[in-house]
Amino acid sequence: MDERLKKQLDFSLEIDKEKNIFRYTHLSGNGRNENDAEHAWHMAIMAYILREYSNEPVDIAKVMIMCLIHDIVEIDAGDTYAYSDTELETQKEREDRAKERIFSLLPEDQKNEMIALFDEFEAYETPEAKFAHAMDNIQPNLLNNANNGGDWKLNRVSAAKVWERQSKTRLGSEKLYEYVAGVVKRFVDDGTLLP
Amino acid sequence: MDERLKKQLDFSLEIDKEKNIFRYTHLSGNGRNENDAEHAWHMAIMAYILREYSNEPVDIAKVMIMCLIHDIVEIDAGDTYAYSDTELETQKEREDRAKERIFSLLPEDQKNEMIALFDEFEAYETPEAKFAHAMDNIQPNLLNNANNGGDWKLNRVSAAKVWERQSKTRLGSEKLYEYVAGVVKRFVDDGTLLP
Repeated sequence: MDERLKKQLDFSLEIDKEKNIFRYTHLSGNGRNENDAEHAWHMAIMAYILREYSNEPVDIAKVMIMCLIHDIVEIDAGDTYAYSDTELETQKEREDRAKERIFSLLPEDQKNEMIALFDEFEAYETPEAKFAHAMDNIQPNLLNNANNGGDWKLNRVSAAKVWERQSKTRLGSEKLYEYVAGVVKRFVDDGTLLP
Repeated sequence: MDERLKKQLDFSLEIDKEKNIFRYTHLSGNGRNENDAEHAWHMAIMAYILREYSNEPVDIAKVMIMCLIHDIVEIDAGDTYAYSDTELETQKEREDRAKERIFSLLPEDQKNEMIALFDEFEAYETPEAKFAHAMDNIQPNLLNNANNGGDWKLNRVSAAKVWERQSKTRLGSEKLYEYVAGVVKRFVDDGTLLP
């Protein structure tokens, strides 16, 4: 086997580990914790199905691959709960090291391509990054809503934190922000989210 | 919320159940059984990384969405082991019923779009379908190879069955078929695959 294909397959095998990185979110039906690979799969399909709601036209292949790879760094860095300040503090450094190690398994050109996609997602500036982030916010919200806000109750999350994160959904999609704002408002009103 | 978005979100929630459909394949490191959502996520990334090896040029967005949705019918129909004759007999009928129920949750135009993608995958004729199928064959092979053929040993699979399936990988990619043929040959030679 040539060196290029060997590297591509080594990377493909390495990312299998993402299936063992569990998130705070639970599956619908009050199921078990979700893992990163499942979350990314779900986001990518939702991006395709909901693409008509992006504020700006998007290259859907780019949005999908961005969704699919955005959590690969968590193989080394672990999942950071979106509503935990202490974890968020060290997140960037942990993820930068992971990014370098994992994408370096690929041939140089693809390493650069994947890191560029990952960085573009993180920078939250292009239409594709904004829409992919909207999916990253809405997908767990969909599950949490189906579970009557169970994840927020369990982790004693405050309304302010949720508004801070979800308000950025608006950057990718005004329409989907409207929906998600309705969900958050319901859980503020019924006291699930702490004031 | 308008009816169209409600349908799209109902579908998005329904497919969460795919995370509970477990396959015969085990994760690398002799891990637990893999589920369909994880398998589809892995296939879609591999399609993107390995796209240069497709025999024919492909629309990569189409290949990725095909990979992502190709097992949604298993939410109702269950996983069919590729090397079980009895399960393969009833597969089509079970999957047709599931396809109709699950994709009918979407607005009509998207129901038609998703069913067309699913049918195109199943028909194995277009460049995208052939390359997506190559991923469907190679992804479990990659894990099984990492686990020293454990899945084939466990399920007492014969070499003839594996050749029958893997020979079709060639339709999508001669180059990747070469690789996978090498893996199969190794497990024939060491007696892991029954004659």
